Amino acid sequence: MITSTSNPIIKQIRKLSQRKERRETGTFFAEGVRIVGAALEKQWQFDTIIYSPELVKADFANEIIEIARKKSIPLTEVSADVFQTLSGKDNPQGIGAVLQQQFASLEKLSQSYGNWIALFEAADPGNVGTIIRTADSAGFNGVILVGDSTDPFDPNSIRASMGSIFAIEIANITLEDLKRIRTAGRYTIIGASDKATINYRGYDYPKDLILFMGSERQGLSPAAIELCDEMVSIPMVGSADSLNLSIAGGILMYEVFNQQHETSHRRGG
Amino acid sequence: MITSTSNPIIKQIRKLSQRKERRETGTFFAEGVRIVGAALEKQWQFDTIIYSPELVKADFANEIIEIARKKSIPLTEVSADVFQTLSGKDNPQGIGAVLQQQFASLEKLSQSYGNWIALFEAADPGNVGTIIRTADSAGFNGVILVGDSTDPFDPNSIRASMGSIFAIEIANITLEDLKRIRTAGRYTIIGASDKATINYRGYDYPKDLILFMGSERQGLSPAAIELCDEMVSIPMVGSADSLNLSIAGGILMYEVFNQQHETSHRRGG
Repeated sequence: MITSTSNPIIKQIRKLSQRKERRETGTFFAEGVRIVGAALEKQWQFDTIIYSPELVKADFANEIIEIARKKSIPLTEVSADVFQTLSGKDNPQGIGAVLQQQFASLEKLSQSYGNWIALFEAADPGNVGTIIRTADSAGFNGVILVGDSTDPFDPNSIRASMGSIFAIEIANITLEDLKRIRTAGRYTIIGASDKATINYRGYDYPKDLILFMGSERQGLSPAAIELCDEMVSIPMVGSADSLNLSIAGGILMYEVFNQQHETSHRRGG
Repeated sequence: MITSTSNPIIKQIRKLSQRKERRETGTFFAEGVRIVGAALEKQWQFDTIIYSPELVKADFANEIIEIARKKSIPLTEVSADVFQTLSGKDNPQGIGAVLQQQFASLEKLSQSYGNWIALFEAADPGNVGTIIRTADSAGFNGVILVGDSTDPFDPNSIRASMGSIFAIEIANITLEDLKRIRTAGRYTIIGASDKATINYRGYDYPKDLILFMGSERQGLSPAAIELCDEMVSIPMVGSADSLNLSIAGGILMYEVFNQQHETSHRRGG
Protein backbone atom coordinates (compact mmCIF):
# COMPACT_ATOMS: atom_id res chain seq x y z
CA MET A 1 0.00 0.00 0.00
CA ILE A 2 1.25 3.47 -0.91
CA THR A 3 1.11 5.72 2.14
CA SER A 4 3.32 8.60 1.01
CA THR A 5 1.66 11.48 -0.80
CA SER A 6 4.99 12.22 -2.49
CA ASN A 7 5.30 8.74 -3.99
CA PRO A 8 6.26 9.23 -7.67
CA ILE A 9 3.26 7.24 -8.97
CA ILE A 10 0.93 9.43 -6.94
CA LYS A 11 2.68 12.61 -8.03
CA GLN A 12 2.31 11.50 -11.64
CA ILE A 13 -1.42 10.87 -11.22
CA ARG A 14 -1.92 14.24 -9.54
CA LYS A 15 -0.30 15.86 -12.58
CA LEU A 16 -3.16 14.52 -14.72
CA SER A 17 -5.33 17.32 -13.35
CA GLN A 18 -3.38 19.48 -15.84
CA ARG A 19 -4.44 19.41 -19.45
CA LYS A 20 -0.85 19.53 -20.67
CA GLU A 21 -0.02 16.33 -18.81
CA ARG A 22 -3.15 14.59 -20.10
CA ARG A 23 -2.24 15.55 -23.65
CA GLU A 24 1.35 14.41 -23.37
CA THR A 25 0.52 11.05 -21.83
CA GLY A 26 -2.75 10.38 -23.64
CA THR A 27 -4.21 9.32 -20.28
CA PHE A 28 -6.59 10.77 -17.69
CA PHE A 29 -7.71 10.16 -14.12
CA ALA A 30 -11.35 9.44 -13.37
CA GLU A 31 -12.81 8.82 -9.94
CA GLY A 32 -15.93 7.45 -8.35
CA VAL A 33 -17.55 4.02 -8.22
CA ARG A 34 -20.04 4.71 -10.94
CA ILE A 35 -17.53 6.27 -13.31
CA VAL A 36 -14.91 3.53 -12.91
CA GLY A 37 -17.67 0.93 -13.25
CA ALA A 38 -18.83 2.50 -16.51
CA ALA A 39 -15.28 2.51 -17.92
CA LEU A 40 -14.93 -1.16 -17.01
CA GLU A 41 -18.29 -2.09 -18.49
CA LYS A 42 -17.49 -0.29 -21.73
CA GLN A 43 -14.04 -1.94 -21.85
CA TRP A 44 -11.89 1.14 -21.87
CA GLN A 45 -8.18 0.55 -21.46
CA PHE A 46 -6.97 0.91 -17.88
CA ASP A 47 -3.45 1.80 -16.84
CA THR A 48 -4.38 1.15 -13.22
CA ILE A 49 -7.21 1.23 -10.72
CA ILE A 50 -6.33 3.13 -7.55
CA TYR A 51 -8.28 2.45 -4.40
CA SER A 52 -8.12 3.06 -0.69
CA PRO A 53 -9.51 0.13 1.32
CA GLU A 54 -10.26 2.53 4.21
CA LEU A 55 -12.47 4.69 2.00
CA VAL A 56 -14.18 2.10 -0.19
CA LYS A 57 -17.66 1.60 1.22
CA ALA A 58 -19.84 0.54 -1.70
CA ASP A 59 -20.20 -3.17 -2.45
CA PHE A 60 -20.05 -2.24 -6.12
CA ALA A 61 -16.54 -0.82 -5.60
CA ASN A 62 -15.36 -4.14 -4.18
CA GLU A 63 -16.95 -5.94 -7.13
CA ILE A 64 -15.05 -3.64 -9.49
CA ILE A 65 -11.80 -4.45 -7.71
CA GLU A 66 -12.54 -8.18 -8.02
CA ILE A 67 -13.32 -7.92 -11.73
CA ALA A 68 -10.18 -5.85 -12.27
CA ARG A 69 -8.11 -8.53 -10.52
CA LYS A 70 -9.56 -11.21 -12.81
CA LYS A 71 -8.88 -9.08 -15.85
CA SER A 72 -5.31 -8.43 -14.70
CA ILE A 73 -5.83 -4.69 -14.56
CA PRO A 74 -3.02 -3.31 -12.37
CA LEU A 75 -4.33 -2.35 -8.91
CA THR A 76 -2.74 0.37 -6.81
CA GLU A 77 -3.68 0.31 -3.13
CA VAL A 78 -3.25 3.61 -1.33
CA SER A 79 -4.00 5.08 2.09
CA ALA A 80 -6.99 7.34 2.62
CA ASP A 81 -4.68 10.37 2.93
CA VAL A 82 -3.04 9.59 -0.38
CA PHE A 83 -6.35 9.06 -2.15
CA GLN A 84 -7.58 12.38 -0.81
CA THR A 85 -4.69 14.14 -2.58
CA LEU A 86 -5.86 12.66 -5.89
CA SER A 87 -9.51 13.46 -5.43
CA GLY A 88 -11.45 16.57 -6.28
CA LYS A 89 -14.18 15.62 -3.82
CA ASP A 90 -14.76 16.33 -0.15
CA ASN A 91 -15.88 12.77 0.53
CA PRO A 92 -14.16 10.63 -2.08
CA GLN A 93 -15.51 7.14 -2.70
CA GLY A 94 -11.98 5.78 -2.55
CA ILE A 95 -11.77 4.40 -6.08
CA GLY A 96 -10.39 5.90 -9.26
CA ALA A 97 -8.55 4.90 -12.39
CA VAL A 98 -5.92 6.06 -14.84
CA LEU A 99 -7.26 5.34 -18.31
CA GLN A 100 -6.14 5.70 -21.90
CA GLN A 101 -7.94 8.48 -23.77
CA GLN A 102 -10.01 7.22 -26.65
CA PHE A 103 -11.08 9.40 -29.56
CA ALA A 104 -13.07 8.35 -32.61
CA SER A 105 -10.97 8.73 -35.75
CA LEU A 106 -11.98 10.96 -38.61
CA GLU A 107 -12.28 7.82 -40.72
CA LYS A 108 -14.71 6.29 -38.25
CA LEU A 109 -16.76 9.49 -38.18
CA SER A 110 -16.87 9.63 -41.96
CA GLN A 111 -18.00 6.04 -42.22
CA SER A 112 -20.66 6.16 -39.53
CA TYR A 113 -24.37 6.89 -39.67
CA GLY A 114 -26.86 8.22 -37.17
CA ASN A 115 -26.97 11.42 -35.13
CA TRP A 116 -24.04 13.38 -33.78
CA ILE A 117 -23.73 16.67 -31.94
CA ALA A 118 -20.76 18.89 -32.80
CA LEU A 119 -19.58 21.71 -30.54
CA PHE A 120 -17.60 24.58 -32.01
CA GLU A 121 -14.84 25.78 -29.66
CA ALA A 122 -16.70 24.74 -26.52
CA ALA A 123 -14.95 26.29 -23.53
CA ASP A 124 -16.67 24.89 -20.46
CA PRO A 125 -15.89 21.28 -19.50
CA GLY A 126 -19.08 21.08 -17.43
CA ASN A 127 -21.13 21.89 -20.52
CA VAL A 128 -19.24 19.31 -22.59
CA GLY A 129 -19.80 16.60 -19.97
CA THR A 130 -23.49 17.45 -19.64
CA ILE A 131 -23.91 17.34 -23.42
CA ILE A 132 -22.18 13.93 -23.50
CA ARG A 133 -24.67 12.70 -20.87
CA THR A 134 -27.66 14.08 -22.77
CA ALA A 135 -26.38 12.80 -26.14
CA ASP A 136 -26.14 9.31 -24.64
CA SER A 137 -29.71 9.58 -23.28
CA ALA A 138 -31.07 10.80 -26.62
CA GLY A 139 -29.40 7.99 -28.58
CA PHE A 140 -26.80 10.11 -30.32
CA ASN A 141 -23.68 8.33 -31.54
CA GLY A 142 -21.34 10.84 -30.03
CA VAL A 143 -20.02 14.33 -29.46
CA ILE A 144 -17.66 15.95 -31.95
CA LEU A 145 -15.47 18.70 -30.52
CA VAL A 146 -14.54 21.07 -33.34
CA GLY A 147 -11.55 23.39 -33.27
CA ASP A 148 -9.98 24.85 -30.15
CA SER A 149 -12.10 23.04 -27.59
CA THR A 150 -11.91 22.33 -23.89
CA ASP A 151 -10.71 18.84 -22.97
CA PRO A 152 -13.49 16.23 -22.67
CA PHE A 153 -11.21 14.35 -20.25
CA ASP A 154 -11.11 17.31 -17.86
CA PRO A 155 -12.31 16.10 -14.42
CA ASN A 156 -15.34 18.44 -14.59
CA SER A 157 -16.37 17.02 -17.95
CA ILE A 158 -16.02 13.42 -16.76
CA ARG A 159 -18.02 14.20 -13.61
CA ALA A 160 -20.81 15.96 -15.54
CA SER A 161 -20.98 13.09 -18.05
CA MET A 162 -21.89 10.69 -15.20
CA GLY A 163 -20.09 7.89 -17.02
CA SER A 164 -21.63 8.52 -20.44
CA ILE A 165 -18.19 9.59 -21.69
CA PHE A 166 -17.38 5.87 -21.82
CA ALA A 167 -20.58 4.97 -23.64
CA ILE A 168 -20.59 7.16 -26.74
CA GLU A 169 -17.98 8.29 -29.25
CA ILE A 170 -15.92 11.42 -28.61
CA ALA A 171 -14.09 13.04 -31.50
CA ASN A 172 -11.87 16.10 -31.71
CA ILE A 173 -11.46 17.49 -35.20
CA THR A 174 -10.78 20.74 -37.04
CA LEU A 175 -13.28 22.79 -38.98
CA GLU A 176 -11.43 21.61 -42.12
CA ASP A 177 -12.09 18.01 -41.09
CA LEU A 178 -15.76 18.78 -40.66
CA LYS A 179 -15.75 20.30 -44.13
CA ARG A 180 -14.38 17.04 -45.50
CA ILE A 181 -17.10 15.08 -43.73
CA ARG A 182 -19.65 17.40 -45.21
CA THR A 183 -18.21 17.06 -48.69
CA ALA A 184 -18.47 13.27 -48.38
CA GLY A 185 -22.19 13.96 -48.32
CA ARG A 186 -23.34 11.43 -45.78
CA TYR A 187 -24.46 13.88 -43.14
CA THR A 188 -26.81 16.84 -43.03
CA ILE A 189 -25.29 19.54 -40.83
CA ILE A 190 -27.81 21.62 -38.91
CA GLY A 191 -26.44 24.67 -37.15
CA ALA A 192 -27.99 26.41 -34.15
CA SER A 193 -28.10 30.19 -33.95
CA ASP A 194 -30.45 32.61 -32.26
CA LYS A 195 -30.37 34.59 -35.52
CA ALA A 196 -31.71 31.75 -37.67
CA THR A 197 -35.20 32.24 -39.04
CA ILE A 198 -36.28 28.58 -38.93
CA ASN A 199 -37.77 27.61 -35.58
CA TYR A 200 -36.09 24.36 -34.43
CA ARG A 201 -39.50 22.90 -33.74
CA GLY A 202 -40.78 23.41 -37.25
CA TYR A 203 -37.89 21.68 -38.98
CA ASP A 204 -37.99 18.05 -40.19
CA TYR A 205 -34.73 16.51 -39.05
CA PRO A 206 -33.35 14.00 -41.56
CA LYS A 207 -31.55 10.83 -40.57
CA ASP A 208 -27.75 10.94 -40.32
CA LEU A 209 -27.36 14.46 -39.07
CA ILE A 210 -24.85 16.55 -37.19
CA LEU A 211 -26.29 19.21 -34.89
CA PHE A 212 -23.69 21.99 -34.82
CA MET A 213 -23.67 24.27 -31.77
CA GLY A 214 -21.61 27.42 -31.34
CA SER A 215 -19.37 28.33 -28.42
CA GLU A 216 -20.76 29.75 -25.18
CA ARG A 217 -19.62 33.28 -25.94
CA GLN A 218 -19.45 33.62 -29.68
CA GLY A 219 -21.82 31.07 -31.18
CA LEU A 220 -20.82 29.66 -34.57
CA SER A 221 -18.23 31.60 -36.57
CA PRO A 222 -19.05 32.65 -40.17
CA ALA A 223 -16.79 29.84 -41.44
CA ALA A 224 -18.64 27.35 -39.26
CA ILE A 225 -22.03 28.60 -40.43
CA GLU A 226 -20.89 28.09 -44.03
CA LEU A 227 -20.67 24.35 -43.39
CA CYS A 228 -24.30 24.14 -42.29
CA ASP A 229 -27.00 22.88 -44.63
CA GLU A 230 -29.61 24.59 -42.52
CA MET A 231 -29.76 26.86 -39.47
CA VAL A 232 -32.38 26.63 -36.75
CA SER A 233 -33.11 28.76 -33.70
CA ILE A 234 -34.71 28.17 -30.32
CA PRO A 235 -37.20 30.97 -29.59
CA MET A 236 -36.72 33.01 -26.43
CA VAL A 237 -38.92 35.46 -24.60
CA GLY A 238 -38.08 37.29 -21.37
CA SER A 239 -34.85 39.10 -20.57
CA ALA A 240 -32.25 36.38 -21.16
CA ASP A 241 -30.40 36.83 -24.42
CA SER A 242 -29.19 33.28 -24.77
CA LEU A 243 -29.64 29.80 -23.40
CA ASN A 244 -26.91 27.85 -21.68
CA LEU A 245 -25.07 25.75 -24.30
CA SER A 246 -25.93 22.42 -22.70
CA ILE A 247 -29.59 23.41 -22.34
CA ALA A 248 -29.82 24.44 -26.00
CA GLY A 249 -28.10 21.19 -26.98
CA GLY A 250 -30.51 19.17 -24.84
CA ILE A 251 -33.58 20.85 -26.32
CA LEU A 252 -32.35 20.26 -29.89
CA MET A 253 -31.23 16.67 -29.33
CA TYR A 254 -34.59 15.79 -27.78
CA GLU A 255 -36.43 17.40 -30.68
CA VAL A 256 -34.46 15.15 -33.04
CA PHE A 257 -35.04 12.18 -30.75
CA ASN A 258 -38.79 12.79 -30.61
CA GLN A 259 -39.12 13.17 -34.35
CA GLN A 260 -37.06 10.07 -35.09
CA HIS A 261 -37.50 7.74 -32.15
CA GLU A 262 -40.13 5.50 -33.62
CA THR A 263 -38.07 4.57 -36.65
CA SER A 264 -34.43 5.16 -35.79
CA HIS A 265 -31.91 3.61 -33.45
CA ARG A 266 -28.25 4.20 -32.78
CA ARG A 267 -26.17 2.82 -35.62
CA GLY A 268 -22.45 2.17 -35.68
CA GLY A 269 -19.97 2.70 -38.49
CA MET B 1 -11.42 54.86 -1.86
CA ILE B 2 -11.08 51.77 0.30
CA THR B 3 -7.59 50.32 -0.11
CA SER B 4 -7.44 48.00 2.88
CA THR B 5 -8.64 44.43 2.43
CA SER B 6 -9.37 44.31 6.15
CA ASN B 7 -11.71 47.30 6.06
CA PRO B 8 -14.85 46.29 8.03
CA ILE B 9 -17.20 47.02 5.09
CA ILE B 10 -15.13 44.76 2.84
CA LYS B 11 -14.91 42.05 5.47
CA GLN B 12 -18.69 42.16 5.81
CA ILE B 13 -19.19 41.80 2.04
CA ARG B 14 -16.76 38.90 1.90
CA LYS B 15 -18.85 37.14 4.55
CA LEU B 16 -21.77 37.12 2.11
CA SER B 17 -20.11 34.20 0.35
CA GLN B 18 -21.46 32.18 3.30
CA ARG B 19 -25.08 31.14 3.19
CA LYS B 20 -25.52 31.76 6.92
CA GLU B 21 -24.51 35.40 6.52
CA ARG B 22 -26.81 35.86 3.52
CA ARG B 23 -29.71 34.43 5.48
CA GLU B 24 -29.09 36.56 8.56
CA THR B 25 -28.74 39.81 6.64
CA GLY B 26 -31.25 39.12 3.87
CA THR B 27 -28.66 40.43 1.40
CA PHE B 28 -26.27 39.01 -1.18
CA PHE B 29 -23.30 40.05 -3.28
CA ALA B 30 -23.48 39.88 -7.06
CA GLU B 31 -20.70 40.81 -9.44
CA GLY B 32 -20.17 41.58 -13.09
CA VAL B 33 -21.33 44.35 -15.41
CA ARG B 34 -24.17 42.42 -16.91
CA ILE B 35 -25.48 41.11 -13.59
CA VAL B 36 -25.37 44.50 -11.83
CA GLY B 37 -26.95 46.08 -14.91
CA ALA B 38 -29.80 43.56 -14.83
CA ALA B 39 -30.45 44.23 -11.12
CA LEU B 40 -30.56 47.97 -11.83
CA GLU B 41 -32.85 47.56 -14.83
CA LYS B 42 -35.24 45.37 -12.85
CA GLN B 43 -35.17 47.85 -9.95
CA TRP B 44 -33.91 45.60 -7.23
CA GLN B 45 -32.99 47.26 -3.96
CA PHE B 46 -29.29 48.07 -3.67
CA ASP B 47 -27.40 48.47 -0.41
CA THR B 48 -24.37 49.60 -2.36
CA ILE B 49 -22.52 49.29 -5.64
CA ILE B 50 -18.83 48.47 -5.21
CA TYR B 51 -16.43 49.27 -7.99
CA SER B 52 -12.75 49.57 -8.67
CA PRO B 53 -11.93 52.38 -11.13
CA GLU B 54 -8.69 50.57 -12.04
CA LEU B 55 -10.58 47.43 -13.09
CA VAL B 56 -13.68 48.88 -14.70
CA LYS B 57 -13.14 48.69 -18.45
CA ALA B 58 -16.59 48.42 -20.00
CA ASP B 59 -18.43 51.62 -20.94
CA PHE B 60 -21.59 49.97 -19.67
CA ALA B 61 -20.04 49.75 -16.18
CA ASN B 62 -19.43 53.49 -16.17
CA GLU B 63 -23.00 54.06 -17.31
CA ILE B 64 -24.21 51.93 -14.41
CA ILE B 65 -22.15 54.00 -11.97
CA GLU B 66 -23.64 57.20 -13.43
CA ILE B 67 -27.20 55.90 -13.16
CA ALA B 68 -26.52 54.74 -9.60
CA ARG B 69 -25.25 58.20 -8.70
CA LYS B 70 -28.43 59.79 -10.07
CA LYS B 71 -30.57 57.32 -8.18
CA SER B 72 -28.62 57.98 -4.98
CA ILE B 73 -27.53 54.37 -4.68
CA PRO B 74 -24.54 54.35 -2.28
CA LEU B 75 -21.29 53.87 -4.18
CA THR B 76 -18.24 52.22 -2.64
CA GLU B 77 -14.98 52.85 -4.45
CA VAL B 78 -12.28 50.29 -3.80
CA SER B 79 -8.79 49.47 -5.05
CA ALA B 80 -8.21 46.62 -7.52
CA ASP B 81 -6.64 44.53 -4.75
CA VAL B 82 -9.65 44.98 -2.52
CA PHE B 83 -12.08 44.13 -5.31
CA GLN B 84 -10.13 40.99 -6.07
CA THR B 85 -10.74 39.75 -2.51
CA LEU B 86 -14.50 40.07 -3.09
CA SER B 87 -14.53 38.42 -6.47
CA GLY B 88 -14.83 34.76 -7.39
CA LYS B 89 -13.29 35.44 -10.79
CA ASP B 90 -9.75 35.46 -12.11
CA ASN B 91 -10.31 38.59 -14.15
CA PRO B 92 -13.04 40.51 -12.33
CA GLN B 93 -14.88 43.24 -14.21
CA GLY B 94 -14.46 45.53 -11.22
CA ILE B 95 -18.11 46.11 -10.41
CA GLY B 96 -20.43 44.38 -7.98
CA ALA B 97 -23.32 45.13 -5.67
CA VAL B 98 -24.79 44.23 -2.31
CA LEU B 99 -28.50 43.75 -2.84
CA GLN B 100 -31.57 42.92 -0.80
CA GLN B 101 -32.89 39.41 -1.40
CA GLN B 102 -36.33 39.36 -2.89
CA PHE B 103 -38.68 36.38 -2.66
CA ALA B 104 -42.22 36.12 -3.99
CA SER B 105 -44.68 35.66 -1.13
CA LEU B 106 -46.95 32.65 -0.85
CA GLU B 107 -49.86 35.04 -1.29
CA LYS B 108 -48.42 36.33 -4.54
CA LEU B 109 -47.85 32.80 -5.79
CA SER B 110 -51.38 31.80 -4.90
CA GLN B 111 -52.85 34.77 -6.68
CA SER B 112 -50.78 34.51 -9.85
CA TYR B 113 -51.41 32.75 -13.11
CA GLY B 114 -49.15 31.39 -15.82
CA ASN B 115 -46.37 28.81 -15.73
CA TRP B 116 -43.99 28.09 -12.90
CA ILE B 117 -41.29 25.52 -12.34
CA ALA B 118 -40.90 24.08 -8.85
CA LEU B 119 -37.76 22.28 -7.70
CA PHE B 120 -37.97 19.83 -4.82
CA GLU B 121 -34.89 20.01 -2.55
CA ALA B 122 -32.58 21.15 -5.34
CA ALA B 123 -29.00 20.87 -4.10
CA ASP B 124 -26.83 22.37 -6.82
CA PRO B 125 -26.79 26.18 -7.15
CA GLY B 126 -25.50 25.92 -10.73
CA ASN B 127 -28.58 23.90 -11.68
CA VAL B 128 -30.88 26.38 -9.94
CA GLY B 129 -29.30 29.34 -11.73
CA THR B 130 -29.44 27.58 -15.10
CA ILE B 131 -33.11 26.72 -14.55
CA ILE B 132 -33.82 30.37 -13.67
CA ARG B 133 -32.16 31.42 -16.95
CA THR B 134 -34.13 28.87 -18.97
CA ALA B 135 -37.41 29.67 -17.19
CA ASP B 136 -36.93 33.33 -18.13
CA SER B 137 -36.27 32.38 -21.77
CA ALA B 138 -39.31 30.13 -21.92
CA GLY B 139 -41.64 32.77 -20.48
CA PHE B 140 -42.18 31.13 -17.11
CA ASN B 141 -43.22 33.40 -14.24
CA GLY B 142 -40.67 32.05 -11.88
CA VAL B 143 -38.90 29.29 -10.02
CA ILE B 144 -40.34 27.88 -6.80
CA LEU B 145 -37.82 26.24 -4.50
CA VAL B 146 -39.61 23.68 -2.38
CA GLY B 147 -38.32 22.36 0.94
CA ASP B 148 -34.69 22.14 1.95
CA SER B 149 -33.19 23.80 -1.11
CA THR B 150 -29.89 25.33 -2.03
CA ASP B 151 -29.75 29.14 -1.92
CA PRO B 152 -30.73 30.86 -5.19
CA PHE B 153 -28.56 33.79 -4.08
CA ASP B 154 -25.46 31.61 -3.94
CA PRO B 155 -22.78 33.14 -6.22
CA ASN B 156 -22.85 30.07 -8.51
CA SER B 157 -26.61 30.35 -8.94
CA ILE B 158 -26.43 34.06 -9.71
CA ARG B 159 -23.63 33.49 -12.23
CA ALA B 160 -25.49 30.64 -13.97
CA SER B 161 -28.69 32.71 -14.12
CA MET B 162 -26.85 35.33 -16.24
CA GLY B 163 -29.00 38.05 -14.69
CA SER B 164 -32.34 36.27 -15.13
CA ILE B 165 -32.56 35.96 -11.33
CA PHE B 166 -33.57 39.64 -11.36
CA ALA B 167 -36.16 39.16 -14.11
CA ILE B 168 -38.46 36.43 -12.83
CA GLU B 169 -40.01 35.55 -9.48
CA ILE B 170 -38.13 33.34 -7.02
CA ALA B 171 -40.06 31.70 -4.19
CA ASN B 172 -38.97 29.43 -1.37
CA ILE B 173 -41.79 27.46 0.21
CA THR B 174 -42.47 24.21 2.04
CA LEU B 175 -44.21 21.16 0.64
CA GLU B 176 -47.13 22.09 2.91
CA ASP B 177 -47.30 25.51 1.24
CA LEU B 178 -47.38 23.85 -2.17
CA LYS B 179 -50.22 21.65 -0.93
CA ARG B 180 -52.16 24.79 0.01
CA ILE B 181 -51.56 26.26 -3.45
CA ARG B 182 -52.78 23.04 -4.96
CA THR B 183 -55.89 23.01 -2.77
CA ALA B 184 -56.70 26.53 -3.95
CA GLY B 185 -57.17 24.88 -7.33
CA ARG B 186 -55.69 27.47 -9.62
CA TYR B 187 -52.73 25.44 -10.81
CA THR B 188 -52.26 22.03 -12.37
CA ILE B 189 -49.14 20.43 -10.91
CA ILE B 190 -47.23 18.20 -13.30
CA GLY B 191 -44.46 16.12 -11.80
CA ALA B 192 -41.44 14.74 -13.63
CA SER B 193 -40.22 11.23 -12.96
CA ASP B 194 -38.41 8.67 -15.07
CA LYS B 195 -40.90 6.11 -13.73
CA ALA B 196 -43.97 7.93 -15.06
CA THR B 197 -45.80 6.18 -17.88
CA ILE B 198 -46.91 9.32 -19.72
CA ASN B 199 -44.31 10.56 -22.22
CA TYR B 200 -43.81 14.31 -21.64
CA ARG B 201 -44.21 14.88 -25.36
CA GLY B 202 -47.63 13.27 -25.55
CA TYR B 203 -49.19 15.32 -22.76
CA ASP B 204 -51.36 18.41 -23.34
CA TYR B 205 -50.11 21.02 -20.91
CA PRO B 206 -52.90 23.18 -19.53
CA LYS B 207 -52.53 26.88 -18.79
CA ASP B 208 -51.53 27.87 -15.26
CA LEU B 209 -49.29 24.98 -14.43
CA ILE B 210 -46.48 24.15 -12.08
CA LEU B 211 -43.84 21.76 -13.43
CA PHE B 212 -42.50 19.92 -10.40
CA MET B 213 -38.98 18.47 -10.67
CA GLY B 214 -37.31 16.20 -8.12
CA SER B 215 -33.88 16.63 -6.58
CA GLU B 216 -30.70 15.65 -8.41
CA ARG B 217 -30.21 12.50 -6.34
CA GLN B 218 -33.60 11.38 -5.15
CA GLY B 219 -36.18 12.76 -7.55
CA LEU B 220 -39.57 13.62 -6.06
CA SER B 221 -40.42 12.09 -2.68
CA PRO B 222 -43.66 10.08 -2.31
CA ALA B 223 -45.21 13.05 -0.46
CA ALA B 224 -44.20 15.35 -3.33
CA ILE B 225 -45.61 12.97 -5.94
CA GLU B 226 -48.91 12.96 -4.06
CA LEU B 227 -49.32 16.65 -4.83
CA CYS B 228 -49.04 16.09 -8.58
CA ASP B 229 -52.10 15.99 -10.80
CA GLU B 230 -50.14 14.13 -13.43
CA MET B 231 -46.66 12.64 -13.84
CA VAL B 232 -44.67 12.72 -17.06
CA SER B 233 -41.34 11.20 -18.06
CA ILE B 234 -38.62 12.04 -20.56
CA PRO B 235 -37.65 8.89 -22.46
CA MET B 236 -34.02 7.82 -22.37
CA VAL B 237 -32.02 5.32 -24.36
CA GLY B 238 -28.30 4.57 -24.01
CA SER B 239 -26.43 3.95 -20.77
CA ALA B 240 -27.25 7.10 -18.77
CA ASP B 241 -29.83 6.48 -16.09
CA SER B 242 -30.93 10.06 -15.65
CA LEU B 243 -30.70 13.48 -17.20
CA ASN B 244 -29.11 16.46 -15.51
CA LEU B 245 -31.80 18.36 -13.56
CA SER B 246 -31.40 21.59 -15.51
CA ILE B 247 -31.48 19.70 -18.84
CA ALA B 248 -34.68 17.86 -17.89
CA GLY B 249 -36.19 21.17 -16.73
CA GLY B 250 -35.19 22.84 -20.00
CA ILE B 251 -36.71 20.09 -22.13
CA LEU B 252 -39.99 20.20 -20.20
CA MET B 253 -40.25 24.00 -20.08
CA TYR B 254 -39.69 24.22 -23.83
CA GLU B 255 -42.30 21.56 -24.46
CA VAL B 256 -44.79 23.68 -22.51
CA PHE B 257 -43.57 26.81 -24.29
CA ASN B 258 -43.97 25.23 -27.72
CA GLN B 259 -47.45 23.95 -26.99
CA GLN B 260 -48.62 27.26 -25.55
CA HIS B 261 -46.58 29.97 -27.21
CA GLU B 262 -49.07 31.01 -29.81
CA THR B 263 -51.80 31.78 -27.32
CA SER B 264 -50.15 32.42 -23.98
CA HIS B 265 -47.89 35.07 -22.54
CA ARG B 266 -46.41 35.69 -19.14
CA ARG B 267 -49.08 36.96 -16.79
CA GLY B 268 -48.63 38.65 -13.44
CA GLY B 269 -50.64 38.17 -10.24
